[in-house]
Amino acid sequence: MQRIENHACFGGQQQVWQHASSTLDCTMKFAVYLPPQAERGPCPVLYWLSGLTCSEQNFIQKAGAQRYAAEHGLVLVAPDTSPRGDDVADDEGWDLGIGAGFYLDATRKPWAAHYRMHDYVVNELPALVDAHFPTTTARGISGHSMGGHGALVIALKHPGAYRSVSAFAPIVAPGRVPWGRKAFAAYLGEDEQAWQAWDATALIANARERLPLLVDQGGADEFLDSQLKPELLRAACEAAGHPLTLRLQPGYDHSYYFIASFIGEHLAHHARALKG
Amino acid sequence: MQRIENHACFGGQQQVWQHASSTLDCTMKFAVYLPPQAERGPCPVLYWLSGLTCSEQNFIQKAGAQRYAAEHGLVLVAPDTSPRGDDVADDEGWDLGIGAGFYLDATRKPWAAHYRMHDYVVNELPALVDAHFPTTTARGISGHSMGGHGALVIALKHPGAYRSVSAFAPIVAPGRVPWGRKAFAAYLGEDEQAWQAWDATALIANARERLPLLVDQGGADEFLDSQLKPELLRAACEAAGHPLTLRLQPGYDHSYYFIASFIGEHLAHHARALKG
Repeated sequence: MQRIENHACFGGQQQVWQHASSTLDCTMKFAVYLPPQAERGPCPVLYWLSGLTCSEQNFIQKAGAQRYAAEHGLVLVAPDTSPRGDDVADDEGWDLGIGAGFYLDATRKPWAAHYRMHDYVVNELPALVDAHFPTTTARGISGHSMGGHGALVIALKHPGAYRSVSAFAPIVAPGRVPWGRKAFAAYLGEDEQAWQAWDATALIANARERLPLLVDQGGADEFLDSQLKPELLRAACEAAGHPLTLRLQPGYDHSYYFIASFIGEHLAHHARALKG
Repeated sequence: MQRIENHACFGGQQQVWQHASSTLDCTMKFAVYLPPQAERGPCPVLYWLSGLTCSEQNFIQKAGAQRYAAEHGLVLVAPDTSPRGDDVADDEGWDLGIGAGFYLDATRKPWAAHYRMHDYVVNELPALVDAHFPTTTARGISGHSMGGHGALVIALKHPGAYRSVSAFAPIVAPGRVPWGRKAFAAYLGEDEQAWQAWDATALIANARERLPLLVDQGGADEFLDSQLKPELLRAACEAAGHPLTLRLQPGYDHSYYFIASFIGEHLAHHARALKG
């Protein structure tokens, strides 16, 4: 594992690391923010999953999360959004293939060879992080859009593994919107029954743990009605009795200006759970 | 003048506008952040000048300044760093020509036709801003690297026009470092006497107004010894009795991670002067 960036930031260190991923069978980068408190002892970790077209860079450059992580003493880990490399399958569209891993484990050719972002985020990456950085076992997870889908699905699939979860403008029901249907058909095949294992609104019905969900959604988000449909998450949570705080933020769009405006409240939410 | 971006951000609006600049004889973009307070009445304006290779986008995406502007009720205005367009002279290097206007008024061909960023920032842009947005006449100015040079020089050249000034990692003595010598020779010619009018360390000797300077400089800045040389600013201020707060921040580099870490303190500094 090789460190390729290191910047002092709010009294801590914003780093980017590169490593050979056995899960994804390619070279991967991830970002880690070490707050000042990490110099004195282990800190809880918040995993951040980014959206379509992003790399490990977008969140660390644009969200302004380091200020709050330095206040609360949280390590932030932001992986890339898909496997990368010349031998990794790709698609012409920006919503499938590289930059669009959807945080699942693909079962169909040619995708199954590398596209195992779920396994990577849940297993390989935390093991790597815990081996190299001063972390406790307290983990939270959050993300934006495709990464909001990833955060919700991963927390729901792994009861007990995460103490807190939140999302910004998540794709809550990928099986029922164009982005998700295109990606799931490619990665998982046409049998929609197999899609249920990667759909937050389906997983909530049978969740073994009632981890409260915090979701912010911009009211002026250009993808609100076509791709995001937070009302489907609300309906699923109401039907299952799953605790949900869903906040519609009037006027906010799908950009990092929206994330930056509310990331402080999300980090406070995670800090309460991770340090409590 | 045409609005080309508008994002809700920390309760206000992050906008980008495009207009035909008569000073620069080309189409220009600039960013403006309107804090929530601007809905109720006019607010003071902080002008931000970016560094080499930047556009109007870098500061608004990476500095995280909107949070503090929303707290203090400051309008933020961030222009581009040079004229732009197919008929604007350019150079192969990233440190001369497009993206490298150095906030001066060029006198030599082929640069003089468009490269008048000083005139633009001091005259045309504030007139445009004040005509279109709810602003008071209280103005501050700040910037980074080449833009730190611009902020210091513009404040020193125009006593009374700005109530506050600060800089991050400024090029304090462009006539004595490679970036500045290359640019000044091209824009102003080989007569180094003409360079003095655009050199903060030269202007301080004869400043008619003793506006206090706030400067932050990263101790691990890769350009510290070769291009920035803050000790030359300290010497000029000591010789002239000019008030200077120069803070060396150990470990910080030249990136926006450095700016983000201290922009809150700079905005508080400007707010005290602009609202006092």
